[in-house]
Amino acid sequence: MSTLAIASAKEVFDLLHDDLEAIEREFGADAVSSVEAITEISCYLRQGGGKRIRPLLLLLSARSLGFSGHDMVRLGAVVEMVHTATLVHDDIIDAADTRRGRPSANTTWGNSKCVLAGDWLYMQAFRVALEARNFRILDLLIGLTQQMVEGELLQMERLGRAISADEYNDLIYRKTACLFEVSMRIGAVLAGASEDREQAMGEYGRNLGMAFQIVDDVLDLTASEEVLGKPVASDLREGKATLAVIHALENGSTAAERAAIHTVLTDQDFSRVTHDEILAILRRNHSVEFAMNEAFACADAARSAIADLPDSDYKRALLWVPDFVVAREK
Amino acid sequence: MSTLAIASAKEVFDLLHDDLEAIEREFGADAVSSVEAITEISCYLRQGGGKRIRPLLLLLSARSLGFSGHDMVRLGAVVEMVHTATLVHDDIIDAADTRRGRPSANTTWGNSKCVLAGDWLYMQAFRVALEARNFRILDLLIGLTQQMVEGELLQMERLGRAISADEYNDLIYRKTACLFEVSMRIGAVLAGASEDREQAMGEYGRNLGMAFQIVDDVLDLTASEEVLGKPVASDLREGKATLAVIHALENGSTAAERAAIHTVLTDQDFSRVTHDEILAILRRNHSVEFAMNEAFACADAARSAIADLPDSDYKRALLWVPDFVVAREK
Repeated sequence: MSTLAIASAKEVFDLLHDDLEAIEREFGADAVSSVEAITEISCYLRQGGGKRIRPLLLLLSARSLGFSGHDMVRLGAVVEMVHTATLVHDDIIDAADTRRGRPSANTTWGNSKCVLAGDWLYMQAFRVALEARNFRILDLLIGLTQQMVEGELLQMERLGRAISADEYNDLIYRKTACLFEVSMRIGAVLAGASEDREQAMGEYGRNLGMAFQIVDDVLDLTASEEVLGKPVASDLREGKATLAVIHALENGSTAAERAAIHTVLTDQDFSRVTHDEILAILRRNHSVEFAMNEAFACADAARSAIADLPDSDYKRALLWVPDFVVAREK
Repeated sequence: MSTLAIASAKEVFDLLHDDLEAIEREFGADAVSSVEAITEISCYLRQGGGKRIRPLLLLLSARSLGFSGHDMVRLGAVVEMVHTATLVHDDIIDAADTRRGRPSANTTWGNSKCVLAGDWLYMQAFRVALEARNFRILDLLIGLTQQMVEGELLQMERLGRAISADEYNDLIYRKTACLFEVSMRIGAVLAGASEDREQAMGEYGRNLGMAFQIVDDVLDLTASEEVLGKPVASDLREGKATLAVIHALENGSTAAERAAIHTVLTDQDFSRVTHDEILAILRRNHSVEFAMNEAFACADAARSAIADLPDSDYKRALLWVPDFVVAREK
């Protein structure tokens, strides 16, 4: 495999099979509290799966720079725990009913317990990270979680109205790209990389994360509920304008089209304008295409950022991930 | 003053006046986020006041051991921020309308924003603590916040039913005494104290915290709303059995009295049994007296733990604080 480009998710997951298994075991052990309800909720969340893309990035970053110590496993679990904690609190805030095709934790345990379970998971992530005894990593994690929490608040304040592309980019950076960036940076810090190298790995993560979230938002508009495992167009139903919608509003759509989009954002439902009508507006303005092109550009920027990494299977995997992210269907 | 026992709150606050002012400034600066809603909420919470007893303990611990560096101010703000963060999330969980005589933050900003503001305050506390570059202190803070969060969940699971005195003690340790203990321990760590000394300072804090919470719970039963600045008997209204109530249930009360207490705990209101009837039951069983005696014993244990501290105004202040805590009327 080492002389060819990596061509499938299976090859990447095979390459990291043992590391990812170790991270699952670490996460499993970390999710246990002396308080039963916390263990129940965090096990439920852990078993809900997810793509484990953040730990995967951390592993690829560290391994591509020659690191292979246990801290990689520990911190892989940490970034997934931080991600999980944000999901619990976000689901409370969005009053979400489902997550990853199952009832969301707040539906099962109620908001109060989930506030506390989310708090506990954040703390547990820091506790495990603290075991690595590395201030730089703690700085990255704390800075990150604050950016994410602030982002969620900014998003709340912008619900129900059209936002600019800049505002959108800031929101998705905070929501997704920031943790992708930090996962890559932590891998570099563990490997004792130079600041420049850490920066470049961070650039890769940030661009990959932007691509990931843009595609996520496009899929929310265009995919079917069976494929997605959650209700479609949930962003519009929550009053969130995402990139394709912003493009349609800002570029070439008619006054009637703009009014239709504003109606849905304000109503936060499809009672006066249907989902199909919105899709037709986006199609007429090539807005989904525009958003996907942005995602492709971010994927390219991610690949460029690591062009000068020493050659290895891990580098090849990193070069492949952006394709996976933009081509996925859910 | 140095040859006499300290006899008033004023003397203690005079002794620490500059330090406490510096902590207010630090807290004020730390409570500022680039996201306006967070700054608003955290300033509202900060300005709500509170006794600042946790920073005061940290200062007295550090100063009584000869420390006087800036980290004392920084970490004084940190323990108050952790305390504030727990209050925000607790008020959401208890659906509290008032806090310290004002509308609670969740009443003003809604639950969602307050979940996030609480998250942000926790993170900010860790971020500021991280500046001290001391792993031991971070270990203490993370362990602490997890104990507190777990305690809140345990309490939720025990609402509406009689709990044992052991369960009560565990709950109030997690709710209050744990942070008092950690505040004292951090002071000792800053001063470079031995493990034994840190342990003894922690013992002081733990016992003081137990006394503090027992008295708090007694006042909730016996004080008037004007004095307390919040509705009285809120514990019973939330289905929480506190020490005096547990005593009445376990010691000598008649079957009818026990039934009356169970009724209030189950109903979580005074529609079938009045607050006055509960107070009469507690009086007949000397239950408030019992709880206050427990508080006095904890106050004594706190003083004993620091008996061998070198003599100083700070030690004398520490010897005085337990009296203040058990004698307060709100």
